[in-house]
Amino acid sequence: MQEKENILIIGAGLCGALLALRLAQKGYNVIVYESRPDLRSTDISAGRSINLALSDRGLKAMAMVGIEDKVTPLCTPMYGRLIHDKEGNTFASNYSGREGEYINSISRGGLNGVLLSEAEKYDNVTIHFNKKCLDVDIENTIAKFKCYTTNEKFEVNADIIFGADGAGSSLRKSYYLEKKFLFSYSQNYLTHGYKELEIPANKIGKHQISKDHLHIWPRGEYMLIALPNLDGSFTVTLFLSYDEGEYNFNNLTTIDKVTEFFQTQFPDALALIPDIHNEFFNNPTGALGTIKCSPWSYKDKTLLIGDAAHAIVPFYGQGMNASFEDVVVFDTILEQHQGDWEATFKAYEKARKEDTDAIADLAVDNYYEMRDHVANPLFKEKRKLEMDLEKAFPTSYFSKYSMVTFDENIGYAKAMKIGRAQDKALLNLIADREIDTTKDLKNILNQIQKETNEILDEDKIAGLR
Amino acid sequence: MQEKENILIIGAGLCGALLALRLAQKGYNVIVYESRPDLRSTDISAGRSINLALSDRGLKAMAMVGIEDKVTPLCTPMYGRLIHDKEGNTFASNYSGREGEYINSISRGGLNGVLLSEAEKYDNVTIHFNKKCLDVDIENTIAKFKCYTTNEKFEVNADIIFGADGAGSSLRKSYYLEKKFLFSYSQNYLTHGYKELEIPANKIGKHQISKDHLHIWPRGEYMLIALPNLDGSFTVTLFLSYDEGEYNFNNLTTIDKVTEFFQTQFPDALALIPDIHNEFFNNPTGALGTIKCSPWSYKDKTLLIGDAAHAIVPFYGQGMNASFEDVVVFDTILEQHQGDWEATFKAYEKARKEDTDAIADLAVDNYYEMRDHVANPLFKEKRKLEMDLEKAFPTSYFSKYSMVTFDENIGYAKAMKIGRAQDKALLNLIADREIDTTKDLKNILNQIQKETNEILDEDKIAGLR
Repeated sequence: MQEKENILIIGAGLCGALLALRLAQKGYNVIVYESRPDLRSTDISAGRSINLALSDRGLKAMAMVGIEDKVTPLCTPMYGRLIHDKEGNTFASNYSGREGEYINSISRGGLNGVLLSEAEKYDNVTIHFNKKCLDVDIENTIAKFKCYTTNEKFEVNADIIFGADGAGSSLRKSYYLEKKFLFSYSQNYLTHGYKELEIPANKIGKHQISKDHLHIWPRGEYMLIALPNLDGSFTVTLFLSYDEGEYNFNNLTTIDKVTEFFQTQFPDALALIPDIHNEFFNNPTGALGTIKCSPWSYKDKTLLIGDAAHAIVPFYGQGMNASFEDVVVFDTILEQHQGDWEATFKAYEKARKEDTDAIADLAVDNYYEMRDHVANPLFKEKRKLEMDLEKAFPTSYFSKYSMVTFDENIGYAKAMKIGRAQDKALLNLIADREIDTTKDLKNILNQIQKETNEILDEDKIAGLR
Repeated sequence: MQEKENILIIGAGLCGALLALRLAQKGYNVIVYESRPDLRSTDISAGRSINLALSDRGLKAMAMVGIEDKVTPLCTPMYGRLIHDKEGNTFASNYSGREGEYINSISRGGLNGVLLSEAEKYDNVTIHFNKKCLDVDIENTIAKFKCYTTNEKFEVNADIIFGADGAGSSLRKSYYLEKKFLFSYSQNYLTHGYKELEIPANKIGKHQISKDHLHIWPRGEYMLIALPNLDGSFTVTLFLSYDEGEYNFNNLTTIDKVTEFFQTQFPDALALIPDIHNEFFNNPTGALGTIKCSPWSYKDKTLLIGDAAHAIVPFYGQGMNASFEDVVVFDTILEQHQGDWEATFKAYEKARKEDTDAIADLAVDNYYEMRDHVANPLFKEKRKLEMDLEKAFPTSYFSKYSMVTFDENIGYAKAMKIGRAQDKALLNLIADREIDTTKDLKNILNQIQKETNEILDEDKIAGLR
C-alpha cells in the first residue's frame, strides 16, 4: 500500500464506529460524520432499539478489533426464550442444546460508546457529531453536510466514502437519485410497527422477571418481547399491526382501550409496566422494513455497509451482528486486494451479498414463527426434539437457529439453505409420524440427515435457485 | 352509482387505452394524458418492444370490450419455439400438446392504435398526446403535466386518478417521494440488457424463416429471439450482459467485434440481418427490470395499474397479458363495489397482487430456463414428455407453461405453485429414472400427479409461504 488514503465514513453508529476503529488500526486517515449528538454525553435512545442481541458473529468482530474485554461486562446472557401465555404461565425454550451457546442482551448506547472511545484513541481518527449528510456527489467523492449546531452547510472531499449511515442512508439515496448506473433496490415493510415500553427494576435494583431469558408474549396477530438491561430493567417491545385486527396502532387511541388491550392480552406484563400510558402515547411507533440493494459500491469511490446496504427486521436478533460481520468480511477482502479499492468493493459484495440477503429473509420468516409459536404444537415438538438432538450430538446436530446464531464459520446463506431443508425434513417426519421418539435418538438423527439430504438433492435437480 | 365521476388516466399505452375504453363503456367521464405522440400518426417504435405475445389472458380482455374481431387480424399465431443451434440446425418445441393452444405475435403499435380508436368512439373519452405527467398531488388528486408541444405546464384535477403510465410511472414516483404512507417498493435489474434488430421480409414480402414459431438462439450467456410481423419481417431481440463474459454490450464497440460475435454465435441469424451494424450501433440498449410495489392505491383517490404497478421482464411473454388481465379483474371488482372506490381499490389489490408477484417471478425464472435450454438434456426430456401427456390427456394434464399461458381461468399464483411442484416432480422422476417411458403414459401421469401432490403437501406442512 503506497499511501494511506483519506477515508470519510458517514455515520458513527455501531457499524460506522467499528469500521472507523478497524481502518484506524490499519493506518488509514479516517474522518467520521454523524448526524446525531454524541451518545456518550446525550440521551438519544428514544425511538430506536435500546438493547440488542449480540451473538457469535458480532463477538467475532469484537475479537478482531481486540475489545472483547470491554464488551463482555456490558452483556446479559440470555439462554433461551421464556414464553408467556395469556394466563401468565411460562414455558422455557432454550436457544441451543449445547453448553455455552447463548445470546447477549446489550445496550446499544453502551456498546456504541465503547466503539467510539476505542476509535478515538487513534490519532488518525476524527469523529464529528451533529453533522447530517444531505447527499453525496459519488463521481467526485464529495459529501454535503448540514451542521445541526450552526445550521451551516459544508462539503467534505475524500478519496473513499463509506456510507455506514443506516437504513435511511444518504449515500444510498444518492445512488438511487443520481441514476449513474442500474440500481436494484427494494424497501419492504411489514404490516406491523413497533413501540418500546419499560419494565423497571424493582426497589433494590433487581430484575422482576428472569434476566436469563428473552421474554415473549406471542399472540398470533401481535406480540410483546422483553430483553434485560444491566440496571435491572427490561426494554419491552410491542409488535402490532397499524390498521388490522381488533387492536391496532390506529385504534388504540385512548387510555381505556390501551388498558383493555394489555389487560386481556398481556395481563402479567401490564402489571410490570407502571408507566404504560405515558410510554404508549409518547414513545414513537417505529416501522419494520427490509432494505436490499445492489450494487453497493461505485467504482473505487464509495461503498454502502451495514444497515445502509441491508436493513433487516429485528426478529432473528441479527441486525447488529450482520453489520459487524460486514466489517470482518470487508477487512479480510481489503487485505487480499491491497490498495485496489474497486476490486475490494466488488469482491466484498460478491462474497457478502447472498449472506445479507439470506439473513433478511430469515428475519422475516422468524416474524411469522415467533408470532405463531404458541398456536403450533408441531413447531413445539420440533423445537423440543432439536434440543434433545443438540444435547445428545453436540458436534453433529445443529438447528437452523444454531447455525445462524452460534456458528460464525458458515455464512447466513448456507445456514439458511441447510436449515430450511432440515426444518422441512423435521416437520414432515413429525407430522407423518415417521419419527418414533421411543427409538433411540441416533436413529432419529440418521432419519433427519437422510431426509434433509434428499430434500437438498431434489431442490438441486429442480434447479431451484 | 349516483354520479359518473371524472376520471383521469395517466398513460395511453396498452393498459391505459384499454382501461379508458372499458370505463367509457361503463359511462364514466374519462380524460387521458399520454406523454408520447399519437402512435397512429407517428413512428415511435424505437427502443420499445415492437411486437409482443398476445395469449389467452389478453384475449379475454379483448373479448370483454368486444373487439376480438379487430384484434385477430393483427395476430400471427406461433405454435412453439424453434430452437437454432450454432451449426444452424433447428429443433421445434411446441407450446402445448393440445390443439388450438398457441400464442400470437402482434404489433404493439397496431394493437395500441385499435384500442385508442375504439376508446375515442365514445363521447365521454378524450385523449391528449405529448403531455408528460411530472408528478401527482395524491391528496388533492391534482396531476401536473408539461406539454411537449408548447412547453407549458398545467394542472389537471379529477375525482379519481389512474396511473397507467408504465414502468417509469410518475404516480408511483409520487407515492415514493411524498412519503404519506409506508410504501413497499422494489426495482430489480437483470445483469443483461436487450437490443432490437430486424430480419426483413424477402423480395416478395414473405417471411424468410418459419412464421409459425418464436425463434430462439439460446447460448447460455446470451440469447437471440425473433417474433414474426405481419409484413414478412421479424423483430429480433438480443439479450446480452452489460459487462460480463467474452462478449458484452460494453465491449462490442466495433463493427469487427460485432461481426465476429454474430459470425461465431449466430451465423444463420447474421445471414438474415442485412443492416446489423447500423441497427446494433444506433438502436438503444434497453434494461430488463422487475418492479413490484404496495399499496397500489391511496384512499379513494388514486390507483396504479399495469406496468406502473408491476413491470416484469419479457421472458414469459406475459407483460401485456398481465396488464390486460388487470383491467378484467378491476372491472369485476368495480362492479361488486358500485361507487365505493376505496373498497374497490383495496379489494382489487388483494385479489390481484399475489398473481402479479407470481408472474414477475415466473418471468425471471424463464430468463434462466430459456438461456440454458440447449445445455440441459433433462429439461428437453421433460418438455417432450409433457407434450406427450398433454396430447394423450388433454383435459387432465397441464404443464406450467400451459397453465400460465392458456388457462385464463386460474390465477398466475396458483399456476406458479402447482406448476413449480409439478416441474420438480417431473425433473426428479426423470433424473432418478423412476419414470419408465416404455410403460403407458397413464402410469406416468399417475406417478407425476402423486409426486406433485406429495411435494405440495410437504411444502404446506413446512409452512412455506
